[in-house]
Amino acid sequence: MYMPDMFVEVEPSEISGLIEAHPLAAIVTNGTDGLAANHIPVLRHGEDRLVGHIALANDMHRTAADGAEVLLIFRGEDAYISPNWYLSKKTNPNHVPTWNYQVAHVYGRISFQHDEKSKRAVVGRLTKRFEAETNGDAGWKMSDAPRDYMETMLSNIVAFEVEITKVLGKSKLSQNRLAEDFANVTGELEARGINELAGRMKRFERD
Amino acid sequence: MYMPDMFVEVEPSEISGLIEAHPLAAIVTNGTDGLAANHIPVLRHGEDRLVGHIALANDMHRTAADGAEVLLIFRGEDAYISPNWYLSKKTNPNHVPTWNYQVAHVYGRISFQHDEKSKRAVVGRLTKRFEAETNGDAGWKMSDAPRDYMETMLSNIVAFEVEITKVLGKSKLSQNRLAEDFANVTGELEARGINELAGRMKRFERD
Repeated sequence: MYMPDMFVEVEPSEISGLIEAHPLAAIVTNGTDGLAANHIPVLRHGEDRLVGHIALANDMHRTAADGAEVLLIFRGEDAYISPNWYLSKKTNPNHVPTWNYQVAHVYGRISFQHDEKSKRAVVGRLTKRFEAETNGDAGWKMSDAPRDYMETMLSNIVAFEVEITKVLGKSKLSQNRLAEDFANVTGELEARGINELAGRMKRFERD
Repeated sequence: MYMPDMFVEVEPSEISGLIEAHPLAAIVTNGTDGLAANHIPVLRHGEDRLVGHIALANDMHRTAADGAEVLLIFRGEDAYISPNWYLSKKTNPNHVPTWNYQVAHVYGRISFQHDEKSKRAVVGRLTKRFEAETNGDAGWKMSDAPRDYMETMLSNIVAFEVEITKVLGKSKLSQNRLAEDFANVTGELEARGINELAGRMKRFERD
């Protein structure tokens, strides 16, 4: 990924936050079927792993060998940025359009787990996390489904772990703009309801 | 990509609409530097091409040769779907969590253009499209910037075209659910402000 110094994300908490807020990774593989991607929710597990599961019918665990390099792409909200939004344009016409976004590219080595214990563990972790967010204390639990049914469902999935080898974070958030231009871009985004992106920009706000 | 029959997107207009609504492609290459991705706005050009531009400083045009296969990923809004949202759960406990999303994977052969005419053409097309959407008749035009400045900016970019060889569309939109469950999932998403995704689901609504 093209990484100009000014847009390199240096805050680990920003990268972790992005992954947590947008857990549906585009998992890119270059397996026996060539370039492919699958969109799978994943969770951080400790410092150096991401975990998730795929359908047994998903060829990813056949086309990508254990230990194969994969790229997981996480991305937040994005938006076109118009030169009209730079207030300094009145006195300085040297502006062009751009695009704002925040991404994390996580590289790692994937391995697949077919044993029921591993599969049950990752389903449990995902369920706990997303149900707590969605339904709080009234969250669905694996034990809400009949035991036979869950066993069948677990037999139809494969768990995976990605051992992280490299993380690239890029935050293209108008942080290279004059204070007045930056403030107006944030305002224009908010006026259009692009609030998540505007919110990510706030830490670069100046007085 | 894992493509169960029920989630294969068969409507070309849905795929075109997704690309138009979410033009920031994740362009995946497997070049001399291995798996990499860059996030670049692109436009459909005719039936069989996508066009855009990258910074001259972006290694993509050096690591991926003219004619190299690339994968462009386009994705709309996504959301976790809780089993609690299926009304039929009261009488049938056989449900598990899932995730809804809509993606298009466009495969093609990339080529890069370094001549000013090609670069000016693609910048013009992108500007026209996004300025019309953003600012209507008051849209910024390339001619709003000084000629020397625009020439310098154009000298710092590379245009590209992707000749499309394959398109995979996947719409995971609860279309495989009972009518009452489908309707309640849509309602839960709307109640949480996940309106774009709910909107994409509407065509599967039943009486």
